[in-house]
Amino acid sequence: MKNAMDILIDKIKEMDNPTVMGLDPRYEMIPEVVRRKYGTDLKSVCEAIFEYNKELIDNTYDIVPAIKPQIAFYELFGPDGMECFRKTCSYAKEKGMVVIADIKRGDIGSTAAGYSNTYIGKTNLVDREEALYDIDFATVNPYFGIDGIKPFIEDAKKYNKGLFILVKTSNPSSSELQDLVLAEGKTVYEKVAELVNEWSADMIGESGYSAVGAVVGATHPKQLEELRAKMPNTFFLIPGYGAQGGKAEDIALGFKDGIGGIVNASRSLMCAYKKDEYKEKYAEEEYGKATREEAIRMRDELNSAIK
Amino acid sequence: MKNAMDILIDKIKEMDNPTVMGLDPRYEMIPEVVRRKYGTDLKSVCEAIFEYNKELIDNTYDIVPAIKPQIAFYELFGPDGMECFRKTCSYAKEKGMVVIADIKRGDIGSTAAGYSNTYIGKTNLVDREEALYDIDFATVNPYFGIDGIKPFIEDAKKYNKGLFILVKTSNPSSSELQDLVLAEGKTVYEKVAELVNEWSADMIGESGYSAVGAVVGATHPKQLEELRAKMPNTFFLIPGYGAQGGKAEDIALGFKDGIGGIVNASRSLMCAYKKDEYKEKYAEEEYGKATREEAIRMRDELNSAIK
Repeated sequence: MKNAMDILIDKIKEMDNPTVMGLDPRYEMIPEVVRRKYGTDLKSVCEAIFEYNKELIDNTYDIVPAIKPQIAFYELFGPDGMECFRKTCSYAKEKGMVVIADIKRGDIGSTAAGYSNTYIGKTNLVDREEALYDIDFATVNPYFGIDGIKPFIEDAKKYNKGLFILVKTSNPSSSELQDLVLAEGKTVYEKVAELVNEWSADMIGESGYSAVGAVVGATHPKQLEELRAKMPNTFFLIPGYGAQGGKAEDIALGFKDGIGGIVNASRSLMCAYKKDEYKEKYAEEEYGKATREEAIRMRDELNSAIK
Repeated sequence: MKNAMDILIDKIKEMDNPTVMGLDPRYEMIPEVVRRKYGTDLKSVCEAIFEYNKELIDNTYDIVPAIKPQIAFYELFGPDGMECFRKTCSYAKEKGMVVIADIKRGDIGSTAAGYSNTYIGKTNLVDREEALYDIDFATVNPYFGIDGIKPFIEDAKKYNKGLFILVKTSNPSSSELQDLVLAEGKTVYEKVAELVNEWSADMIGESGYSAVGAVVGATHPKQLEELRAKMPNTFFLIPGYGAQGGKAEDIALGFKDGIGGIVNASRSLMCAYKKDEYKEKYAEEEYGKATREEAIRMRDELNSAIK
């Protein structure tokens, strides 16, 4: 049976596009034409966000293999935001997209199990179990060691889901903790990479990649290259392209034989309609078309660097 | 002006009790007498959880200074669970308790700002800002370095709130990453402790403690003692007492002059009614009384070890 990573990789190959669209909707990003249809109470704002997400999905599902909703920007709107998150995941799945929930949870074992059950497993209601969300992958924080990872791995095995564990994050101060040099000569992130190799070893699929992947930022080309060599069975989720400064040629270092990772872009895709080049071409209500054109541009840019 | 930690410490002194009640409600923990009043759809389950939490708060608010809801166990019930989390925080605040939201979020700057705005700040709705939750403290993960902490610090300053940053967690495998020895001779958690000292330095209140505290597990007495010496201005949130194995005499090592931390107990308080000693004394519908008696026992045990 194909594991979750095999399925994601098949989808990337089928569309010839290693891009995941980050769906991190702040209220101020929503086009005015959408906003003015709704009120500004939380429920209405969430309806506006869902319309926005839906339009972005409708314009990309046939060319972009996956979405990555950042849950922070749904939590930001309270319980209604969580309902919007649920609907966004379901809608993308209906359209055939892979859903990577960017939750970055990390906690002691029993609590990690709570998170895992919620997002990639099932909630126990004694007389039955219920899957609340339709999600394929979750991101996880390694600070607790295996205790915080194991429940996710168990649910991933049980329900054929996948994970991306944080190894080297894209933000500037990731160096403060992750780049500390250990007595044994390695850095903390290299040690985390080794742990990920260990934790993911028995989940390698037909593609040669484990269902447990790693997050490695596009803003660290040297580390991307180094980790690609050290983690031959680990697929990468690569944030930091575009707005954060990661370039296609940097990202290519995380790939081998044209494969090896999926690259996230959030703002550059979601807010393409605000860029001068698309503003000239498309009316504001055609924001979905601007996103589609930007997604094609990004796909081509990545492919020419990777291949 | 008193900072959030001063206010917490005043409350601990007033009640002569360094305990925080963890509210981590799984469905199977709810007394049968409560459960059978409600259906098993998610909304009804959340109503049952709220009744349970409310009864626990009603029986402890005059003797226990704070609650610590673990958000995982509310997320576990989807959007309805988040509404229950909101109501639980509000109710505890109404009753005069300090609320420590155990969210352990960590992400890049812009996303950390989303989390921070949600839980201790305000959500931007363009024409206004809205505080969604009534929370005094949030727990935060340090893996991203200062980028992931700064937005929380900014909101803490702006809204007079506080943080607890993970330093040494209570779970067994915390050693895998946190105890790694650096080339400079320190461990990773000692380095994180230094970073916390640095990040919290300009937020020290009247009590001598910063509004930015640290999470240090009761299961690591040696580290508690060592960190108490190295972090003289840092108040500790101490999980791991009771079910996880931390003892009162271990915990005392995190204190100095009878002060220095707040100790979490979740299951031992919430499920006191299941213990033989309380079962004999109280009917199941008196579960709140069992929790109260266990809270008094815990308070006295902690105080006799600390003082």
